[in-house]
Amino acid sequence: MEPLGVATEHPPLNRVPWVPLEDLVLGGHDVCGRALSASAGELVSAGILSQDLVTGAAPEAAAFEAQIRPGPLDGPEVGLADLDPRSGELGAAAPRDQIDQLQTDWDDFEREHELVRTVVVALASTEAVREPQPEWEDLERFEVALDEGRPQPASLIYAYAALSSGRPHVNFTPNLGAGSPALRQLAEHHGVPHCGSDGKTGETLMKTVLAPLFTARALRVLTWQGYNMLGNRDGEVLRDQSHSEAKLRNKEEVLRSLLGDDPALCAKVGIDYVPSLGDWKVAWDYVHFEGFLGTRMSLQFTWAGCDSALAAPLVLDLARMAAFAAERGESGVMEHTACFFKAPLGGGTHDFHRQYARLLEYAARHSAGD
Amino acid sequence: MEPLGVATEHPPLNRVPWVPLEDLVLGGHDVCGRALSASAGELVSAGILSQDLVTGAAPEAAAFEAQIRPGPLDGPEVGLADLDPRSGELGAAAPRDQIDQLQTDWDDFEREHELVRTVVVALASTEAVREPQPEWEDLERFEVALDEGRPQPASLIYAYAALSSGRPHVNFTPNLGAGSPALRQLAEHHGVPHCGSDGKTGETLMKTVLAPLFTARALRVLTWQGYNMLGNRDGEVLRDQSHSEAKLRNKEEVLRSLLGDDPALCAKVGIDYVPSLGDWKVAWDYVHFEGFLGTRMSLQFTWAGCDSALAAPLVLDLARMAAFAAERGESGVMEHTACFFKAPLGGGTHDFHRQYARLLEYAARHSAGD
Amino acid sequence: MEPLGVATEHPPLNRVPWVPLEDLVLGGHDVCGRALSASAGELVSAGILSQDLVTGAAPEAAAFEAQIRPGPLDGPEVGLADLDPRSGELGAAAPRDQIDQLQTDWDDFEREHELVRTVVVALASTEAVREPQPEWEDLERFEVALDEGRPQPASLIYAYAALSSGRPHVNFTPNLGAGSPALRQLAEHHGVPHCGSDGKTGETLMKTVLAPLFTARALRVLTWQGYNMLGNRDGEVLRDQSHSEAKLRNKEEVLRSLLGDDPALCAKVGIDYVPSLGDWKVAWDYVHFEGFLGTRMSLQFTWAGCDSALAAPLVLDLARMAAFAAERGESGVMEHTACFFKAPLGGGTHDFHRQYARLLEYAARHSAGD
Amino acid sequence: MEPLGVATEHPPLNRVPWVPLEDLVLGGHDVCGRALSASAGELVSAGILSQDLVTGAAPEAAAFEAQIRPGPLDGPEVGLADLDPRSGELGAAAPRDQIDQLQTDWDDFEREHELVRTVVVALASTEAVREPQPEWEDLERFEVALDEGRPQPASLIYAYAALSSGRPHVNFTPNLGAGSPALRQLAEHHGVPHCGSDGKTGETLMKTVLAPLFTARALRVLTWQGYNMLGNRDGEVLRDQSHSEAKLRNKEEVLRSLLGDDPALCAKVGIDYVPSLGDWKVAWDYVHFEGFLGTRMSLQFTWAGCDSALAAPLVLDLARMAAFAAERGESGVMEHTACFFKAPLGGGTHDFHRQYARLLEYAARHSAGD
Repeated sequence: MEPLGVATEHPPLNRVPWVPLEDLVLGGHDVCGRALSASAGELVSAGILSQDLVTGAAPEAAAFEAQIRPGPLDGPEVGLADLDPRSGELGAAAPRDQIDQLQTDWDDFEREHELVRTVVVALASTEAVREPQPEWEDLERFEVALDEGRPQPASLIYAYAALSSGRPHVNFTPNLGAGSPALRQLAEHHGVPHCGSDGKTGETLMKTVLAPLFTARALRVLTWQGYNMLGNRDGEVLRDQSHSEAKLRNKEEVLRSLLGDDPALCAKVGIDYVPSLGDWKVAWDYVHFEGFLGTRMSLQFTWAGCDSALAAPLVLDLARMAAFAAERGESGVMEHTACFFKAPLGGGTHDFHRQYARLLEYAARHSAGD
Repeated sequence: MEPLGVATEHPPLNRVPWVPLEDLVLGGHDVCGRALSASAGELVSAGILSQDLVTGAAPEAAAFEAQIRPGPLDGPEVGLADLDPRSGELGAAAPRDQIDQLQTDWDDFEREHELVRTVVVALASTEAVREPQPEWEDLERFEVALDEGRPQPASLIYAYAALSSGRPHVNFTPNLGAGSPALRQLAEHHGVPHCGSDGKTGETLMKTVLAPLFTARALRVLTWQGYNMLGNRDGEVLRDQSHSEAKLRNKEEVLRSLLGDDPALCAKVGIDYVPSLGDWKVAWDYVHFEGFLGTRMSLQFTWAGCDSALAAPLVLDLARMAAFAAERGESGVMEHTACFFKAPLGGGTHDFHRQYARLLEYAARHSAGD
Repeated sequence: MEPLGVATEHPPLNRVPWVPLEDLVLGGHDVCGRALSASAGELVSAGILSQDLVTGAAPEAAAFEAQIRPGPLDGPEVGLADLDPRSGELGAAAPRDQIDQLQTDWDDFEREHELVRTVVVALASTEAVREPQPEWEDLERFEVALDEGRPQPASLIYAYAALSSGRPHVNFTPNLGAGSPALRQLAEHHGVPHCGSDGKTGETLMKTVLAPLFTARALRVLTWQGYNMLGNRDGEVLRDQSHSEAKLRNKEEVLRSLLGDDPALCAKVGIDYVPSLGDWKVAWDYVHFEGFLGTRMSLQFTWAGCDSALAAPLVLDLARMAAFAAERGESGVMEHTACFFKAPLGGGTHDFHRQYARLLEYAARHSAGD
Repeated sequence: MEPLGVATEHPPLNRVPWVPLEDLVLGGHDVCGRALSASAGELVSAGILSQDLVTGAAPEAAAFEAQIRPGPLDGPEVGLADLDPRSGELGAAAPRDQIDQLQTDWDDFEREHELVRTVVVALASTEAVREPQPEWEDLERFEVALDEGRPQPASLIYAYAALSSGRPHVNFTPNLGAGSPALRQLAEHHGVPHCGSDGKTGETLMKTVLAPLFTARALRVLTWQGYNMLGNRDGEVLRDQSHSEAKLRNKEEVLRSLLGDDPALCAKVGIDYVPSLGDWKVAWDYVHFEGFLGTRMSLQFTWAGCDSALAAPLVLDLARMAAFAAERGESGVMEHTACFFKAPLGGGTHDFHRQYARLLEYAARHSAGD
């Protein structure tokens, strides 16, 4: 089967000597006790995966499942039915104990599979937004907070555990993760590459491709409304406003940044939980714009994508890029990965094509035989 | 009124010392005897221009109209009701006589207005496609054909008249114009800059922005259907299949080129004449694509643009760029204008953002004070 | 000009001897001091009305404007800039005084124009929703409340003033108006016909046409999301949640009623204020449904309508119908008008075609010469 | 599993004592040698049927497949790869021999399963349109033509075989079938009920629901463009223009009839074969309409339906209705089935809701216990 969606397997990115896909070993932490086969069954029912594929890959899936350990549950839980109770216990433990547990699990995993390196990819649902804490601003203060046992969001626990043990970290979620100054200092201190945050897979991806067109053609965008519907766990979690806040903020900032922060711009993003969609995400965007002599025109699009099928290959791409960067001794934010994120840690333009051009340059520099 | 849509008036392109908009003088040739005020009235009725604007600009419009001369009618006419009979006569004259007439008109125009330079922009409706002629392949043979009085498409007559008298030429139409080898030799011979062809204003513009996204993300486009509806004169002319052929070919080639010429790709473009739309163009595109593990997803968009409002500012941009190139002694195809055309004469990628990057480089090189 | 949109002017409804359009005289009450010509200018700018039409109708518009009196402002105002201060004063007066003023204005109006009858049509913006009051349940208690000077929503003041003076009342708004038991008793008591509420002009109209199709074909609707954008005064007022509540409730109840109150149905309606749209309303609806053997399919539509142009002709239709009913001595709710309303006072099905069939029966019974 | 889509299983139609679904036995004729399991596999791949359902129903599917006999191939074949050669032979035989073979097959089928009655439902792909023949106008001439061995379209062979042997006939295709005067006389002569033609399942169904709304509201439809894409066998056959002609004509006539045959109406229907869609049909319709004071507004919709899942339950409904009508001795066109067809044989309105009201009346008359 052709590895569609995995950009690092296609020209021109496939000319970089990334770790081969067949050398990757999957493991992970989860807060949810549901069997992988149940999740796969949902994707089959939704017409996303074929039954044959799921049946054929059952041994690999079982092997993966055997590697999954309970991860710390982030404080304010959202009442999902099938939480693994051990996740709640771990999440209630002292931060240093949570970190130790994660690192022990990773050590075991590496030993068992004789691995060269583990890349930690954050793929959790959206956390509730917290008030910014002073200890997030500075590594030393963060260390003190950990010593004092002050509870931290799970995303920071993971990021700290990864970076402090020299493991590259990819934050595919809108959660804080390694995005705070304290954690970024940690990555620099340990010389570890990392990137994030908030994978750009659907409606926002479209925005970062389309908005630069309006700017290039000197057309003024008056309104850009985006209505998102999704039916999976992420959608269920996002029903809680404290959880959707971070995601919505990222989506709106992208657009305002690309369109030049016009105060008159009306740009709203909504997300609704629509259970019947299952893993599908349907977004409708309406763009109202003004051109020559004040003529008002419109563009509307409907994007019907499958969340897992769009995100999964990017995770493979990013894991390979992080492993490659670590192997080469790169440290800190991986700026060439900006095109994968709604809120790239390195900042810079949100224009997808300009972000992608930067990735192409990186790839050209590191292409085999060049 | 802010010059929306005129990219050369906005950052960063406005840092190039183009000729000021207020120094431009408009004139032209037309085959149609209809008064400009009638055309403007249609745009008001269609909700495109405001009555106030049209009333306020009436003196300028009258001045422009006074400069319009009958142009040669292209052979196979399409039965429009309000043709200027002098256009038919001129179009039936010997090619050399047609050329002389055009050049005489331009000379008079320049003298009357004390102009430094005339840029000739081709804005005619789509011509019927002809069998390729051997004389189009070589300038010498073309000169002989003219001497022998062999009839030529009007677009070639205009291009020859412009380039042979040292006037820059912009082909905004899908017609052959200066695109043949013979005429391109002519431009080189006289050291005149020119560019074309087929202005990229709507659905195709969207395609050249969106298609590269699928390639960058390694998503395979299975189907890209484009249905266009338009209601103006251009639409009326395109009802004749011999006239729509060139336009549809350009639209389809763009997509196949961007998506890597996949033989399995199903990509159709249709154009329908829908009189009630007036100057509006409504296009619906449906993109069916395949991602990770064979998941099939879709994107659809509806573009509702106003043909004149989208094209007019590009004409201003291109006229300024052509004048600037001529002033600087540039000769031959203006490759930096590729992002304005469906079938850029200089070839190269159809990826809008990469074409636009080339324009930005040109602008950076020629920015005032740099 | 053909009276498009005015159903009573077209077959088969035009066979009923309604009052001729040219015999209607327009007057009214408003809380807003803005000149009609300013409103008309906005409609011209938005490409809705032609300048010629507005210019040609200026004398009639001026005559209408001269008849407009300040109406009582509903208590919780929403900060519009151009309120007529006299409206605020009147709205703060004792309820009986407000009622007297309205009736005096109408008496004057009828005398001045020698009118047979005035029909009062409520066209205000959406009021803030109030806690239900015990006095709304019973006419006697309502009379007492008025006597005691207890403040009432403006919509009830108007309805009381109309019905108690024998004037038919049409409630085109989602406001309570004559919908409470107390006011309905009043209408019966005075033998006056009335109807309402909440004109059905766009997205909800579409729903009441389409939802019965799914039922007729035994297709189960899983999700029906409706996203509305509007840019006029109504939209501005609806930004306040207490104001949008009544409208949203009507919209949702319609759908649930038509689809059989399936508890699993996911049906949300959203309304956003999008100033650039002016008087345009753009709605996007997404319907996800399940058919044979569990197959999931979808329908989506985008409705781009002009609020005023859709509502105005219905107001003419309803005014004629109310006058006709009054002339014939009909009393109470005009059940044959259900197809005009989102929340018809007479209850019954929301299925547009069945509501319309009832109107056709009424018209057939009263057709001239039958 | 709930019988979604089968209207005769849901209120109020389920109050009629139709033959129980479990008493139906399936058999048939086909020109295509492909195994049913291969077709089912395609529907699973396309995300339409679940693998579990197909696996669970395999015994029933095998039993059905065992009943399928080669049917006569209609003359001008279209080059499908997997034709059953016996179909070609049978289609080349004398008409009377074809008819005998069909009737023999049905007799055997009834004997084997001890059936009370066979209903013949025509479900073939669209035939090439032929010049109307004089023998189609009159039963006697048709009999002579059969005696003389003049070749006839397969759809007429089937219809003649069914009706002349007293078997009810349902024409779900746009083919001529029992629609000619000759065959209609045959049905009357033998006292057999029949109905057709051209099942109304998707875009046209939507049209017959929506178009009456515009008429009821006195809105003038200026343009109604319909673009259909489909990817299954039917789509493949329709690529041939002689085959698509009948289908397109039905679709266009429906709209013109509903909108009052306005000569200015621009109403085009297109069908494109888009293989990637498999059994999905995606249609985009654009409706441009004019309302009060000439305001132009629009409605657009995208219908994404699954052809088989929409058609199959209607076939069950119609087979039950035909059996019921035959049992009750009804003869000739079943007028109460009009809502199932694009070109109902009994004529009358195309307004879906009015057609459906007629079905409800029929059902009410024949409801059990009433």
